[in-house]
Amino acid sequence: MRFITFSEKRLRSFTESVFKAMGCSDSHARLAADVLITSDLRGIDSHGVARLSGYVRLWEKQRINVVPDIRVVHETPSTATIDGDSGLGLIVAPFAMKTAIEKARQCGSGWVSVRNSNHFGIAAYHALLAVENDMIGISMTNASPLVAPTYANERLLGTNPMCYAFPAGKYPPLVVDMATAAAANGKLEIAQRAEQEVPSGWVQDKDGGLSLNPNELKNGGSLLPLGSDKDHGSHKGYGLGATVDILSAVLSGANYGPWVPPFVAFLEPPADPVGLGIGHFFGAMRVDGFRPAADFKDHLDNWIARFKAAKTVDPDKKVIIPGEPEYQFAQERQEKGIPIIDVVANDLDALAKRFQLTL
Amino acid sequence: MRFITFSEKRLRSFTESVFKAMGCSDSHARLAADVLITSDLRGIDSHGVARLSGYVRLWEKQRINVVPDIRVVHETPSTATIDGDSGLGLIVAPFAMKTAIEKARQCGSGWVSVRNSNHFGIAAYHALLAVENDMIGISMTNASPLVAPTYANERLLGTNPMCYAFPAGKYPPLVVDMATAAAANGKLEIAQRAEQEVPSGWVQDKDGGLSLNPNELKNGGSLLPLGSDKDHGSHKGYGLGATVDILSAVLSGANYGPWVPPFVAFLEPPADPVGLGIGHFFGAMRVDGFRPAADFKDHLDNWIARFKAAKTVDPDKKVIIPGEPEYQFAQERQEKGIPIIDVVANDLDALAKRFQLTL
Repeated sequence: MRFITFSEKRLRSFTESVFKAMGCSDSHARLAADVLITSDLRGIDSHGVARLSGYVRLWEKQRINVVPDIRVVHETPSTATIDGDSGLGLIVAPFAMKTAIEKARQCGSGWVSVRNSNHFGIAAYHALLAVENDMIGISMTNASPLVAPTYANERLLGTNPMCYAFPAGKYPPLVVDMATAAAANGKLEIAQRAEQEVPSGWVQDKDGGLSLNPNELKNGGSLLPLGSDKDHGSHKGYGLGATVDILSAVLSGANYGPWVPPFVAFLEPPADPVGLGIGHFFGAMRVDGFRPAADFKDHLDNWIARFKAAKTVDPDKKVIIPGEPEYQFAQERQEKGIPIIDVVANDLDALAKRFQLTL
Repeated sequence: MRFITFSEKRLRSFTESVFKAMGCSDSHARLAADVLITSDLRGIDSHGVARLSGYVRLWEKQRINVVPDIRVVHETPSTATIDGDSGLGLIVAPFAMKTAIEKARQCGSGWVSVRNSNHFGIAAYHALLAVENDMIGISMTNASPLVAPTYANERLLGTNPMCYAFPAGKYPPLVVDMATAAAANGKLEIAQRAEQEVPSGWVQDKDGGLSLNPNELKNGGSLLPLGSDKDHGSHKGYGLGATVDILSAVLSGANYGPWVPPFVAFLEPPADPVGLGIGHFFGAMRVDGFRPAADFKDHLDNWIARFKAAKTVDPDKKVIIPGEPEYQFAQERQEKGIPIIDVVANDLDALAKRFQLTL
């Protein structure tokens, strides 16, 4: 493996130009690029520009509408359902979160379920939009089925991430952003490239046996829910994945469970859809809808300080505050650039040629 | 182990009379008993009448106010903070959920954070109050610190359950109700009584080593978060436990983290509280704030039917719908009575003597 380091500016400007070349408006291209680059900055390499060619392929298959009419189709003062008109999730999701934030401004909280969308990048991007407004941000999405519920030998749920983000005072925001599977697919990809086995409890093979092979999904295997097996609470990971699926898709009218269309363009969406596109769910709650924001931040700082100071099993390891590593990654990469693995860099080169752009 | 079977009616009436003997009003006693009996009916034996003597001991220590002035101390149209005035969580929590439901009726959703409360029983009881109103119900609570975050050798979080409940059509409500630890404390108690080892990954000993001993918490050990270890995503279980703690206590002004007062009366609350009592968090969202309720229920029925029909690894095991086993327990126990383990039955006998009541 070899890495090529790009400055944030160069990678951002290239990504923007690719979205423009697909036909996105200037502001949409800027926004979509911001979501991807933020992922790379935060060290979530699997969800950044590594996915750019994937979005292009979906667009080539006419599964992404680059001039979507994103609109509210149902609402109350604090809730709404949005139809993404097959737009990029990278555009639809911030629109939906801004709707949630506006509702929170008006009446304390805002909750938006989204149908007819596509992959939205990292959940944290959207939740953090609320945090900038002194709100608690929540974001979730369903995704292509890869996870077998407890006891199942079938992929029925996506890795369905959920994210909760909280504004702190002197510390960076506390951000819980997690797949509800034992391990996200991105971690399998890392093991594939390194040709390493994965821990027992991440995947099962096509017969439902535990497997250490990171390529098992290509052979008909499944990811396992957080908890890995019944004894260790895999029914909880399954329950959380189900919650994300229901809030994102059963509530909005998107596809759910095994009907969620695949992200990869070489697989066709199911022929018998139960809804429109994929689904997301967003929430924003004004902190001062509960107590003065300064009080909340003071206490969250105290929470963070106490957990950082915790006694640890291994004196060389510290308790990590959720979101802290990603924040540190972003600080470092903004300054020193973003290392891109050669496979992905080649992908970007190919996109540059395809659209006659300069990388 | 020996079990004595009580009819629901007899157990309910006795439990009510104990709360009345403590000084609760008739309606409060009826409600508190309903929360405990519902737990026993649903098969969550650890949270039902098994806890009754625990509440009595807290009351004897003057840590529970049986005539609380429960009130909203801060609000917006869709959010509120409630002070439970040291009341029974069994009373404070339904009050808070009803406030959330009323707000949802008015503006689509309602969100309530609670301080100055006590143990609230099973999370599902409160979430299901919303479901009865065609709303999605959410409930969470923090609890006495028993769980060590990833890498920690200190108990900093409770088993902090979260519950999401959804109204279905022809099926019972889908209810995800889960501790954010790998295993709830109740499961350890079952292993203690049976003198059995617990699976590796549930607890660590006082030095942070993995242990199979169900009595490890008495020796200074800790429960582990859902995921059990870093490789299997324990940072996710820790993140979920942190989310529950922040929404329940940092947001409301209750105690959080290691400052949460213990449920057991023989342990004193920390001398340096950072808030008032323990904290809860509740949400209610009108389903028809997003789409017509009948459409949602039809699709949730379809979701449930598809998951029930899933191909399984072991042909003798079926995929379980969250909340289905508890629903079946309740159907059966309403008819055939509630089996109470002898230790708990003796506890109830002692309470009958203590308050001169008939069991």
